[in-house]
This record gives sequence, structure tokens and C-alpha cells, in this order.
Amino acid sequence: MFRGDAVSSRGVTQRDFVLEVEGRTVPGVLWQPDAAAGTRPLVLLGHGGSGHKREEYILALARRLVRHLGFAAAAIDGPHHGDRRADGGLDRDAVWEERQRDRSGPDMTDAMVADWKAALNWLRGEIGPGPVGYWGLSMGTVYGLPFVTAEPRVEAAVLGLMGAAPGPVDDVYRERMRNRFAVDAPATEIPLLFLVQWDDELVAREDAIHLFGLFGSSRKAMHVNVGRHGAVPAVEYDASERFFEELLAPAPVGA
Amino acid sequence: MFRGDAVSSRGVTQRDFVLEVEGRTVPGVLWQPDAAAGTRPLVLLGHGGSGHKREEYILALARRLVRHLGFAAAAIDGPHHGDRRADGGLDRDAVWEERQRDRSGPDMTDAMVADWKAALNWLRGEIGPGPVGYWGLSMGTVYGLPFVTAEPRVEAAVLGLMGAAPGPVDDVYRERMRNRFAVDAPATEIPLLFLVQWDDELVAREDAIHLFGLFGSSRKAMHVNVGRHGAVPAVEYDASERFFEELLAPAPVGA
Repeated sequence: MFRGDAVSSRGVTQRDFVLEVEGRTVPGVLWQPDAAAGTRPLVLLGHGGSGHKREEYILALARRLVRHLGFAAAAIDGPHHGDRRADGGLDRDAVWEERQRDRSGPDMTDAMVADWKAALNWLRGEIGPGPVGYWGLSMGTVYGLPFVTAEPRVEAAVLGLMGAAPGPVDDVYRERMRNRFAVDAPATEIPLLFLVQWDDELVAREDAIHLFGLFGSSRKAMHVNVGRHGAVPAVEYDASERFFEELLAPAPVGA
Repeated sequence: MFRGDAVSSRGVTQRDFVLEVEGRTVPGVLWQPDAAAGTRPLVLLGHGGSGHKREEYILALARRLVRHLGFAAAAIDGPHHGDRRADGGLDRDAVWEERQRDRSGPDMTDAMVADWKAALNWLRGEIGPGPVGYWGLSMGTVYGLPFVTAEPRVEAAVLGLMGAAPGPVDDVYRERMRNRFAVDAPATEIPLLFLVQWDDELVAREDAIHLFGLFGSSRKAMHVNVGRHGAVPAVEYDASERFFEELLAPAPVGA
């Protein structure tokens, strides 16, 4: 259910929500056009490792999808991230350390997939059954790729900053992810845009390109830019917006 | 000099020209907005092997650059292509056969670079000293990459459908191109957009990706799409247009 008051800024209404899923408390946020009525496309935004549901690029992407396209956007915190933590998840180092420990522990993937599915169920109850997209890089792909293959309501996805055997991680985690992606990547059928950073210090470019090759989708594109893991250029946010506009927006009246 | 009359269609004036360069007759075509006056950005278009300066995708790209951006565009026929031939170059098989023989003969690269330079000199005399871009895939990259590294007036380029050691070709040609690209690719300094077809039957994807890695430009992006050599999707023509708009168009008044 919604938690706290709606806040409006330059045409965008932002509202927090919280869900109980299999005993977990899942904090989220929904962005919509002010005074939105009727159904509209929805893009789910998965943040990266050590981040949270309202970090800068997530917020910027949500706002442009609302302002430019009239879409809704929503994000939830990842496991051990953001408002799932008592400290709000703003201490990136503390989140990183806990996540490193967690990687050798139980696999959080199925839980996060369940959290996203529950969020999507609840969101469609609020905004109606419009087309759905998913956008998530790095950890947003670690959880997002299994989610989009498990969730037939997602019609298009932007993924990236990840390889077929993610690093730098311990061997248990690497093997677990490799096995998961080896099943989930070929199972994709929806249009995909996959982003790679040529100088990624966390993901080997060959491994990222290998993951792109594994995707089963008949429509998939890979955009490779120079720069490190965190330096995805602004043009790719433009490209993400255009991608969702093409695939999720209703056809213009008369078209 | 111009040859024949200007022809106008939906806002685009097309006019043939012909130049004498080092004893070669170089046929070209210039597209401009109707009643164009004053200088404007110019994009040079290099067609692919067995094609010619006015084939479908060259014509379509020229027209959109003129209509959408107010740019000028120009193309010249490649060696043994188009109006360099008595038959006009419309028999693709005959062009292909001659080109295969030519590959084992003298290197045409320096001649084509000289032809492009002469064309650019003449074109700037006609339309003024505006910013210049280059677009050319496959054979348009074989000749275009050496051209853009040899021609400091070119400020941005779209290249692609080519690897660091092109195929399928004989060993002499392959070695010649490998040696040329090994020098020219690292010498690039301008912004580049590089297009790759994941299922290219003529260029191995690993070899295309390798060529991308060789480029010296600090700003370079690679767009990879599924499909064969000749199946570059429409979105990449959109991307080419946006790329040149960003890099060559004058800043809006007041910006």
C-alpha cells in the first residue's frame, strides 16, 4: 500500500509504497504524471549494486519517462539495499560489504523475482493493465534477467553492464550466476537493448558480449560505449527512452 | 563541374557532378535543400561493394539529412563502380567480378582517398566551408577509414560492416587491408559510430569487434544488431542522423 504523501515536482507525482511478500517488507516508489487517470505503460527500474530505488539515474530516468512519454515508472529496493535496511541504504560501503557476504549465502534471485512480481501485481491494480517494460543495469540485470524471463507481462527490456559469469565475485556466486544466466538468457523472447561499457572494470567486455550472444530474443541490440562501469553516457538514456516509446507507447490516434 | 540539370523532389535538389582527379573521371552527386543559400554541414556518403552512389539506402540517407536537418550530402562512385563504368554499374554481378579481380591488383585505396579529397575541395567551393561528416559501411569503410584519417576536415564518421582483416577475400587483399587498418584505425581521433551485424555472413563478428577496439577515438560507440550483412535495421539510420545532428549541426540560436 502507499506510504506517506504524494509529492509533486514539475508534472511528476512520486509516491512511496510498501508491500509484504513472503514475509519480506518490500519498499518501492511509483512515479506518474500529475493527476494521472486511466491506464498507461509502466517501466520497472532495477537499480545497481550498492544503490537504491531513488538514486540519481533511476530518478532521472523515471522523471523523463513520465514527462516525455506520459508513462508510469516504478522501482523497488534490491535485497539488503535502500529502505530494506534500517539505515536507509545510503552508506554504499556498508551495503557493498553485506552484499559481498550475501553472495556466498543463499541465492536471493528467486526472492527478488517474487518481489518484482508482487510489485507488478500491486502496481497494475493501481494504474491498470498497460504494457510493461523493465530497465536495469549491473545488479539490475542480475535480478532483472531472471525476472523478465519469468514474467510474461514484461514486453521489452533494457539490460547491461553484466556478463555471462559476473565478476568480481567469489566462485560460488560466479558459478550460481553462470548457471542461472545459461538458462534464463536463451529463454528471452522479448525485444532487448543491451548496454556494454568497453572499459568496464567490473565486467570483462568479452563476457558481456558473450551474454548478448546467449539471449534468445529475435530482436536484440547491443550498444557499446567507451568508459568505465559507472560511465554510461547520456545518449543511452535517450536510447532507452526511445526504445520504450517505440515498444510500449500506444499507437498515435489515426495511425 | 556540374553535369546535367538539377532535379528537385519534395524539397531536395539533386545534381550530378564530375571531376577529373589524377587522370581519373570521378562521378558524383550532390543533394541540397531547394534554393539552398549559405554554408551548411555536409555529409559524404560512401556506398558498399557492388553498389553505386545513388543506390536506395544512400539516396534515402541523403534525403533525410537534407529534409530533416537542412544539411547537404554528397556521394561519389567507388573504383570500378557506378558511372565509372560504361554500363553505369547497375549489373551488380559484373561489378563484383571485376572487384574480385581488382583486389589482387594494385591497391585502389590511395586513389579513392584522393578522389574523396578532390570531391570535398570542389564541394566546399560550391556550398561553403561548413562542418563535414562521413558515412560509409562495408566497402564504404574500406575506403572511408583511410579517408577520414587522412582528411582533417572530417569531424565525425559512421563506419561499420567491416573487420580488421576483411573477408571473404583473397590473401593478398586481406593482408593489405589488415596492414592499412592497423595504421589507420589507431589514428582516428574523431567521434565514431560503428555498426556491426551480429549474423554478418561476410565479416566475422569477432573481427568487427576487434576493429572497433583498434580505433583511437576517445568517443566511439558500437551498435550491434541481429541480422545479416545487408540487414542494417532502420533504427541505425535514425541513429546516424542523430549522430550527425549532434556533432555537425550549428548550435540553436540562443543556446
